[in-house]
Amino acid sequence: MSPEITGYVMEKLFAHGALDVFLTPIFMKKGRAATKITVLCHADYRDRLIEMLLTETTTFGVRLSSATRVKLRRDFIQIETQWGPIQAKRGYLNGTLIKTVPEYEDCKRVAEENNVPIRDVYVETLRAITPLTTQNHSAHR
Amino acid sequence: MSPEITGYVMEKLFAHGALDVFLTPIFMKKGRAATKITVLCHADYRDRLIEMLLTETTTFGVRLSSATRVKLRRDFIQIETQWGPIQAKRGYLNGTLIKTVPEYEDCKRVAEENNVPIRDVYVETLRAITPLTTQNHSAHR
Amino acid sequence: MSPEITGYVMEKLFAHGALDVFLTPIFMKKGRAATKITVLCHADYRDRLIEMLLTETTTFGVRLSSATRVKLRRDFIQIETQWGPIQAKRGYLNGTLIKTVPEYEDCKRVAEENNVPIRDVYVETLRAITPLTTQNHSAHR
Amino acid sequence: MSPEITGYVMEKLFAHGALDVFLTPIFMKKGRAATKITVLCHADYRDRLIEMLLTETTTFGVRLSSATRVKLRRDFIQIETQWGPIQAKRGYLNGTLIKTVPEYEDCKRVAEENNVPIRDVYVETLRAITPLTTQNHSAHR
Amino acid sequence: MSPEITGYVMEKLFAHGALDVFLTPIFMKKGRAATKITVLCHADYRDRLIEMLLTETTTFGVRLSSATRVKLRRDFIQIETQWGPIQAKRGYLNGTLIKTVPEYEDCKRVAEENNVPIRDVYVETLRAITPLTTQNHSAHR
Amino acid sequence: MSPEITGYVMEKLFAHGALDVFLTPIFMKKGRAATKITVLCHADYRDRLIEMLLTETTTFGVRLSSATRVKLRRDFIQIETQWGPIQAKRGYLNGTLIKTVPEYEDCKRVAEENNVPIRDVYVETLRAITPLTTQNHSAHR
Repeated sequence: MSPEITGYVMEKLFAHGALDVFLTPIFMKKGRAATKITVLCHADYRDRLIEMLLTETTTFGVRLSSATRVKLRRDFIQIETQWGPIQAKRGYLNGTLIKTVPEYEDCKRVAEENNVPIRDVYVETLRAITPLTTQNHSAHR
Repeated sequence: MSPEITGYVMEKLFAHGALDVFLTPIFMKKGRAATKITVLCHADYRDRLIEMLLTETTTFGVRLSSATRVKLRRDFIQIETQWGPIQAKRGYLNGTLIKTVPEYEDCKRVAEENNVPIRDVYVETLRAITPLTTQNHSAHR
Repeated sequence: MSPEITGYVMEKLFAHGALDVFLTPIFMKKGRAATKITVLCHADYRDRLIEMLLTETTTFGVRLSSATRVKLRRDFIQIETQWGPIQAKRGYLNGTLIKTVPEYEDCKRVAEENNVPIRDVYVETLRAITPLTTQNHSAHR
Repeated sequence: MSPEITGYVMEKLFAHGALDVFLTPIFMKKGRAATKITVLCHADYRDRLIEMLLTETTTFGVRLSSATRVKLRRDFIQIETQWGPIQAKRGYLNGTLIKTVPEYEDCKRVAEENNVPIRDVYVETLRAITPLTTQNHSAHR
Repeated sequence: MSPEITGYVMEKLFAHGALDVFLTPIFMKKGRAATKITVLCHADYRDRLIEMLLTETTTFGVRLSSATRVKLRRDFIQIETQWGPIQAKRGYLNGTLIKTVPEYEDCKRVAEENNVPIRDVYVETLRAITPLTTQNHSAHR
Repeated sequence: MSPEITGYVMEKLFAHGALDVFLTPIFMKKGRAATKITVLCHADYRDRLIEMLLTETTTFGVRLSSATRVKLRRDFIQIETQWGPIQAKRGYLNGTLIKTVPEYEDCKRVAEENNVPIRDVYVETLRAITPLTTQNHSAHR
């Protein structure tokens, strides 16, 4: 598969139900530098995504294995920053808030609109959150 | 395991029944840049290939997990090109021809014998195929 | 630098004059898995892009070295396919046409509009080109 | 997750019961160069290590799959070298000694104390072993 | 060179004057998965570090090229956090403070002593900094 | 460029004068997982190898930079082992023998002919060398 296609296939897999898709550089026989595509999906989407991999890429085979996923319970909040509201995703482990992560797309938009470094947008968004996640966190340990 | 050995072990695993072997660059504890060897095989070959990994490399352990494989039904055709016949592998999904891929070894031989770029050999071989794979493919969608 | 930012920085570097940008996975001291950003640009854009790297990422230093670039002379053609025209880039070495590569964005658009595999769009576009690039090529060898 | 943290998390996972931890460079959607952390552990440690991954990194999910492990039976010996004793790990397959690998920490200490290349310490340690591992090995083939 | 040695050599190069050292996974001829070591140093340390690479690794050759480095002017501050002081490195571009990065070793120590996630230590340290880096930054744009 | 071609191009570059060729996995814009080919050669071979890269791969440009190379002076010896003679390459730094590395092709041949692990062939070859390289080495430090 040519590199041009990896990005396209990744996008298309997401658009058709993949929970996650990532690429790993690998080395195959006869000196071939290649790319392994890993797709995570619910069983309902499996056949559709296998067909997509077989149709869109040059591969003649797809390997399947089952896995389970442990996820943080999550919700979203609006954080008020000097540039307006930015959404952040919060993760809870056994009912305790353990992380708050600003949404990339919001940070990107704000960084572009205000001509500031995206890193600063992240940091300022984290700074604007109260109360502290660590205080909550410590309280439950 | 020294890098010199990775190529050798890969070849030997294929020669003793591996369906596929590939190398992934990984980073281990204490700053070690290493290489993970992944081997795919039928259950019948498992013990033999595990022994080979344990014997040929410096590892003290091999991790096993089961996977299934979805494969395209495949056959081979001769394609007539300006440089003579080249074999190509064809893949069928649910009875429909969805891809025709020129065989690397044939393209390599032709490229060397005729002093032409291997990329041109691929393209010309694809061009020489009729009827179009996409026509078949569209017809079944 | 968090992974979220690599894609953003890459886009922004292209938008501000980079000729090419690519990421290489590297391993640093103390077990840090990191990403090296390589930027190619004309000297005129150098200071602007250095400032961007220093501002947008967590790095405290940028390494500079000079390189020259050998490029194929290039032009573009419209190729008529069953799905309408697709643009292709052609490359010339010492006046000889040596490659014709369909444009990714056009192939992507056609694949999406017609619900066909992008791989088929590439192949069909290559098939629709006449006269053969290899004939031209062989003639000059 | 920033690269700074990968080394820290790896160390901490080992300290809390991981049998093995390694990092794989991967490429995610939207141009993100990222790092996959793979942890191998006994089922008893699973929940603790999952919690650690969720708490210490920015991830919102951990993927689980089961694997078995084939290991060489192992013991340790002291090898006398010109720089004093160095420990080596020996591996047995079906009762036959098949490899003897000098311990890294011992080789490192000796190399530093004696100001010799670590590569020489390895080689000399291998040379000091008798009888030959290959003689044993050949005898059982 | 065996992977065991990469971490050792990296440490030793830093200890003898390297400004930076990093490892890149590469693929060589004959299927060899290998690791490229890149060392950055001032000219004064060049010969010593070349000798170290030739002595400590299995390589028979070292490639040299010159590069310049653009660096942020930097200083250090103590940041007061709920867990005590943490040092941070500040970077200045043309006299303007553009980034403040908590020191990894300090964050690691605090995380271990207080049994909190290192990610929280980073975030809290960033939160404790005033005035905002972005305010300074915006003012000069 | 498809992965099939990387191995072929690497071989061909070596056959036409490259001193070294290696592949590095990289990540380009638009989610493309790609492979960078690095070629080292004397100036005399430069134009020929650039033409080969432009002709054999899909690239439209090649980047050039100059580098020097520090090499160990080297010679070869025959080492007598239980399986017959094996050639080894020896490296000298400032007149001192600092390393002796068994030749891969010889070790591979011996391993295959005698059905022994290639790792054992390396180790036994190193064991068969006298006098010790480290003794020579230590004597000059």
